[in-house]
Amino acid sequence: MSLLVIGTVAFDAIETPFGKTDKIVGGSATFASLGASYFYDRIKIVAVVGDDFPQSEIQDLQKHNINTEGLQIKQGEKSFFWSGRYHNDMNSRDTLVTELNVLEAFDPIIPEAYQDCEYLMLGNLSPQVQQTVIKRLTKRPKLIVMDTMNFWMDIALDELLATIKLIDVLTINDAEARQLSGEFSLVKAARKILTMGPKYVIIKKGEHGALLFHEDKVFSAPALPLTEVFDPTGAGDTFAGGFIGYLAKVGTVNFDNMKNAIIFGSALASFCVEKFGSEKLRNLTQQEIATRIQEFIRLAKFEIELS
Amino acid sequence: MSLLVIGTVAFDAIETPFGKTDKIVGGSATFASLGASYFYDRIKIVAVVGDDFPQSEIQDLQKHNINTEGLQIKQGEKSFFWSGRYHNDMNSRDTLVTELNVLEAFDPIIPEAYQDCEYLMLGNLSPQVQQTVIKRLTKRPKLIVMDTMNFWMDIALDELLATIKLIDVLTINDAEARQLSGEFSLVKAARKILTMGPKYVIIKKGEHGALLFHEDKVFSAPALPLTEVFDPTGAGDTFAGGFIGYLAKVGTVNFDNMKNAIIFGSALASFCVEKFGSEKLRNLTQQEIATRIQEFIRLAKFEIELS
Repeated sequence: MSLLVIGTVAFDAIETPFGKTDKIVGGSATFASLGASYFYDRIKIVAVVGDDFPQSEIQDLQKHNINTEGLQIKQGEKSFFWSGRYHNDMNSRDTLVTELNVLEAFDPIIPEAYQDCEYLMLGNLSPQVQQTVIKRLTKRPKLIVMDTMNFWMDIALDELLATIKLIDVLTINDAEARQLSGEFSLVKAARKILTMGPKYVIIKKGEHGALLFHEDKVFSAPALPLTEVFDPTGAGDTFAGGFIGYLAKVGTVNFDNMKNAIIFGSALASFCVEKFGSEKLRNLTQQEIATRIQEFIRLAKFEIELS
Repeated sequence: MSLLVIGTVAFDAIETPFGKTDKIVGGSATFASLGASYFYDRIKIVAVVGDDFPQSEIQDLQKHNINTEGLQIKQGEKSFFWSGRYHNDMNSRDTLVTELNVLEAFDPIIPEAYQDCEYLMLGNLSPQVQQTVIKRLTKRPKLIVMDTMNFWMDIALDELLATIKLIDVLTINDAEARQLSGEFSLVKAARKILTMGPKYVIIKKGEHGALLFHEDKVFSAPALPLTEVFDPTGAGDTFAGGFIGYLAKVGTVNFDNMKNAIIFGSALASFCVEKFGSEKLRNLTQQEIATRIQEFIRLAKFEIELS
């Protein structure tokens, strides 16, 4: 039994109002698997990099109990590279460079040892590739979580809709939920998306927290009010990874466990944005995470006794 | 002992994507006192209207246990009138008409019987008038809550800052908190505002709920995810009224009671937006309110046991 994470392992170059980086390691699978690694220790990754990708970075993933047998290294090719600049509000960004490189012809090969996958995290990636992974698993996982973004709605909507049909949980931000559903009200948007396949929809609202929808139930999770968001890159992937990692650890998928999983995912995402890229996710302690969870509990708790 | 509400009692004409109204009764004191009336029954109002204001509307306030002795009726003058049009997102609006009329020379006279005021709600109004009310009270109320808006920051910042110094709780929306503090981060904005006088700051985030700041403590209150916002007019005033009305009922001002007061205020605001103007606030039952509070509890509750 394991948690399979697919997505990108890549280089990012990031500019924020606080500074800029050279090429640092990023990618949806990197953030998601690191996020999950704080709760679960049987994580397997499927992704692709070029021969420019440092061996030390692969070893670092392995140190986090992430099995990299499914990480393809393409000789003579370069890793996926993305460069972006965040605006002052940190909520919007411009893409400066996108070099697909190894991603252009990515064939997600599933090692035989990965067929024990019970939890599947489809990190942000082409919906076609996400779908291929589902089909190559001989046994349907107990839980399939998918993250996506507006980019795929713009250029591959049909494939996206076909993939969404096959999953259990869709994580998506508020603007994307509106785009995908054509509804402005997030309640209406979520209800519409729930008719497209997923049994659960999580709408990520950044500094405003997240909403979980399932049947006629809704859960509103707060975000930790932060003095400073240093770099939001990867926060959504980290959230999704922490979310599914917590569920894999608990082992039972239900609404109450998902609520807690959202809190744990949000806590990890709140660490992620404190430093550039995945730096902060490299060396967290369980004590730091527990302290932050306590902050979430204090932040949201109220006790009303109705007479 | 009583709760004194000052603000406007006025006519509004509203256009939303769902329809438009003729002149209907609105105003910050109307919404706030109606909101408070569901929790507290010794409410006194100070405001001004013209002789065009229907007697039946005054009687309706009285039926909600609102003492209207301090509601001045100016013969030969017209009531304050505001007209606005909401955009499709319901978060922004254009003001079409503002006729100050009786508000131009509003002198907030405090009837002698109002001097027992323990809770003071300074509804949205000129900060000069708000300040005059504070100064005319012979004994400082136990709690002064003030609501304001960007309009006063634009045209009367000095008076606004002078009034803010005298109060306990400021309620303000997120854009206004940013404008008043010059800080983008809401945490930094709130901390700065806490140095300006108030001991508590409530940042209203509309569909994203509200944040309460006090010393180093923060509380994040959810908003009820609504299928449809029919008309947001008065939601902030209703929130503030419900908030202070609940505190007046409980009788003890502390952080925990304020958290609950925010939930009760949010619940009333969630009713307010369901119909045009204050219509929905006219005939709520305690059972309806209790049912909605249960929805808030279910919406936000999670239980994490840290090992």
